[in-house]
Amino acid sequence: MKIDRDRLERSILELGRIGETPRGGLTRLALSDDDRRGRDWMVARMREAGLRITVDQMGNIFGERPGTAPLPPVMMGSHVDSVPTGGKYDGQLGVLCGLETIRALNDGGIRTRHPVSLVIFTNEEGARFQPAMIASGVMAGKIALEDAYNARDKDGLRLVDELERIGYLGAEPCVPRPFRAYLELHIEQGPFLEEAKLSVGVVEGIVAIAWARLTVHGVQDHAGPTPMRIRHDALVAAAEVVTGVRSIARELGGDVVTTVGTLTVTPNIVNAIPGRVVLSIDLRDPRTETLARARQMLDAVVKEACAREGVTYELEHYWQVPYTPFDGQVVEAVERAARNAGARFRRIRSGAGHDAQYMAAIGPAGMIFVPSRGGRSHCEEEFTAIEDIEDGANTLLLAALDLAGRA
Amino acid sequence: MKIDRDRLERSILELGRIGETPRGGLTRLALSDDDRRGRDWMVARMREAGLRITVDQMGNIFGERPGTAPLPPVMMGSHVDSVPTGGKYDGQLGVLCGLETIRALNDGGIRTRHPVSLVIFTNEEGARFQPAMIASGVMAGKIALEDAYNARDKDGLRLVDELERIGYLGAEPCVPRPFRAYLELHIEQGPFLEEAKLSVGVVEGIVAIAWARLTVHGVQDHAGPTPMRIRHDALVAAAEVVTGVRSIARELGGDVVTTVGTLTVTPNIVNAIPGRVVLSIDLRDPRTETLARARQMLDAVVKEACAREGVTYELEHYWQVPYTPFDGQVVEAVERAARNAGARFRRIRSGAGHDAQYMAAIGPAGMIFVPSRGGRSHCEEEFTAIEDIEDGANTLLLAALDLAGRA
Repeated sequence: MKIDRDRLERSILELGRIGETPRGGLTRLALSDDDRRGRDWMVARMREAGLRITVDQMGNIFGERPGTAPLPPVMMGSHVDSVPTGGKYDGQLGVLCGLETIRALNDGGIRTRHPVSLVIFTNEEGARFQPAMIASGVMAGKIALEDAYNARDKDGLRLVDELERIGYLGAEPCVPRPFRAYLELHIEQGPFLEEAKLSVGVVEGIVAIAWARLTVHGVQDHAGPTPMRIRHDALVAAAEVVTGVRSIARELGGDVVTTVGTLTVTPNIVNAIPGRVVLSIDLRDPRTETLARARQMLDAVVKEACAREGVTYELEHYWQVPYTPFDGQVVEAVERAARNAGARFRRIRSGAGHDAQYMAAIGPAGMIFVPSRGGRSHCEEEFTAIEDIEDGANTLLLAALDLAGRA
Repeated sequence: MKIDRDRLERSILELGRIGETPRGGLTRLALSDDDRRGRDWMVARMREAGLRITVDQMGNIFGERPGTAPLPPVMMGSHVDSVPTGGKYDGQLGVLCGLETIRALNDGGIRTRHPVSLVIFTNEEGARFQPAMIASGVMAGKIALEDAYNARDKDGLRLVDELERIGYLGAEPCVPRPFRAYLELHIEQGPFLEEAKLSVGVVEGIVAIAWARLTVHGVQDHAGPTPMRIRHDALVAAAEVVTGVRSIARELGGDVVTTVGTLTVTPNIVNAIPGRVVLSIDLRDPRTETLARARQMLDAVVKEACAREGVTYELEHYWQVPYTPFDGQVVEAVERAARNAGARFRRIRSGAGHDAQYMAAIGPAGMIFVPSRGGRSHCEEEFTAIEDIEDGANTLLLAALDLAGRA
C-alpha cells in the first residue's frame, strides 16, 4: 500500500503555480483571489476523487470519503493560504498528501470502516487576518465566530466580507465535530530532521505560544534642531525592546524562542524623530510555565526601556495557547505507520502553531513532519525533497488506514 | 514702518486650511494636489500684491517687486510643502511674512533701489522626494536637474511628472541667479528661543548634515521552529544600530544630534523572523569635523552590530552638506533690523537644513528664526505665538528694506 510519488509531485507543481512569485516562492494570502483559485483547484481535484464537498461558515472546506460504518471520520488536513513571499510547502503539502492518500485508497479499492475526510482550513497563517489558525479556533470554540468575522486586514477589509467575495462563505455550522482522529502532515520548519538526516518527524505536541503587541508613544519632533536632552524617541525605546526580547531567550536558554516580527514607525521620515512605534512580540516554549516567565520578563523589558526614554506605552498580551500534547494513541499510530513506511523517523515537538493545535482540543489529533532544507520556511527558499515527502505521505496513508480501520 | 499683524494672522489661517489635518496640523506633501492648491493660493495673493510671477524648471515660484535701479533683488523665501502630519508654521511662515513684507512696502508706497522678490521653493522637506531642499539644490548647481527630475516618491512617481501634473513645470532655467541678499524667516524648531524667552533668532549659520541609508539582509524564517542558535535576524541587528546611533551622540556630546527616523521591516509579519530592514540615519553638528567623526563611528556601529548577528548590509552615505556660515553683512543687517523692530533677540545656529543653505552657496544669505513652542516641529502640535511672528516679520521687513535700499 503506497502513494503515487509522481502524481503527488505533479500536484505540488500544479497547486504551486497559483500565486507563485518570480523567485519560485508563493504569495497566496488568505481570502485573496489567489487563495480562491487555490481553493477552486483543490475542490475540483477533491470532486474528481469522489469526495462529497461541504463548506462551513468560516470557509473551511471538507471532502468526505464514506466509510462502511456510521462512525466519525479520520480527518486529514492543513491549509492553502501562505505568508507573503512564503514557500510552496507550508500547508500545501498537508492538503496534497491528504488528497494523495484518498487517491491511493481509491486506486487500491480500499474500503474503511470510518470515513476518511480531507479538510482545508481558512487563514491558518494569520498573515492577513489575526489571529493565526482563526478558523480551526472558531471550530474548537476558542474564538467567537463574530470576532473572527470582524477581523480586519491592514486595508480594513473584514474577513467575513472577503469570505463572501471569494465565494467561500458556507452554510455548515463551524462548531466542534466528532472525529476518530485528526492527522496533519506539515513541513518541520526547523532544522532538526535535516540535521539528523531523517525523513519523518512523529510530532508529540506543539509548544506554548504567546503573542503581544506593543505601542510606544514618543514625541514626534524635528531631527535637526531638537537637542538630544529633550528627546523622547519612540524608536529608541522600541529598539531596546527588540534587543531586550532577544535577551529573554538568551537568559532563559533551553528551547525558548523570542521574536519581534513586525515593527512600524510613524511618521517614518528621515528628518523626524519617531513619534510612534508599534511592534509585535512572539514568545514560544514547550513548557507553559517557562512561557509565563518569559512574559513577565517582557513586561519588565518594556517598562524599563520606555522609562529610560521617557515615553509611554501600551502592551497587550492578546493571544496565547498552552503546550498542546497530541493524543497518545494517534502518536503511536503515526510512529507505527512511519516504521511500516520505511521512513527514517524520530519523535519531535512542533515549534509552530498548526490547526492541529485547536483540533486537539476537540478530539484525538497528531501530526507528521517532513524536513525543511536549512530549517527554513516562511520564505521563498522553503524546500523539502520529494523523497522525504514520499516517506511522509506514506506515513500519513498508513496512519489514516490504521485509524480508519480496513473494512 | 511695520507689518500688519492682523492681515498676517488672517493669511496664516487661510493658507493653513489647505491640507489641514483633523487635529489642526498640516499634511501638504510636495507636488500633491494640496501643494498645488497652496501654490495657487500664494500665486493669487502675490499677483494681488502686484508681483510679476515666473516659475522655473523645478517649479520654484518667483514674484518680483521692481526696484528703481537695474540691480539684483533682495530675495525672501521659504516653502509651502510640509511633512505628513506636520504643522502650519514650518515653511508657511517664511513665505507669508515675505508676502506681508511686500504688502507693507506697498501700503507705505515705499520704493527700493534693489527689487524685492519672494520665492517659494519646491519640495524643501524631502518627505516625498529625496533629498530635501532639492529645488534650491538644483538652483545652486549642487544637484543635477536630471537627477532631481528622476527622484521618485514611494509609489514610484517621478518628480518631473508630478510637477507637470500639478501645472508647475515652468520654463525659466533653474540656475544660479544673482541677488543682493537672500532672507528666510523660519520657525526655530528647537527649544532655545523659548527657553530664553526671546522672540527672534539672528541665524549665523546652519549645522553640517549627513544622511545615510542602511539595508540589513538577514535570513527570513519562521519565528516558531527556528532555534535561536541558527537565526540571522535583520531587525535585531537594526535595533542595535538604532541604539548605537543614539550612543554616538552621547559619546560625542556637545551639539551633535543623531536620529534614525525611518525603519522598514520585510516581510513584517508577527511569526516571521525579519529578513530585511532598511533604515535611515541623520547626523548633524555645527562642526564639519565632528560630523566626519560621527560618520566613522556609525560605520563601526553598523559593522559590529551586523557581525554580531551574522547578517550582511549595505551602508550608503548618500547626502551631506558642510557647516554653512551665513554672510556677515546679512547677519548684521538682520541683527540691526531685530533691534529696530524691538524684538527680544539673540544670535543662534540652525539645526535644520533650509533652502537658505543652498542659497548661501550662490550669494549673501541669512535667516530669521521665531520660537517654536516646546521646541516642537514636524508635528501637529507645532506652534508660534502671533506676537513672536510679528517681531519676526518686522525684522524681515526692516532687514529687506535695509538691504534693498530706500530709493
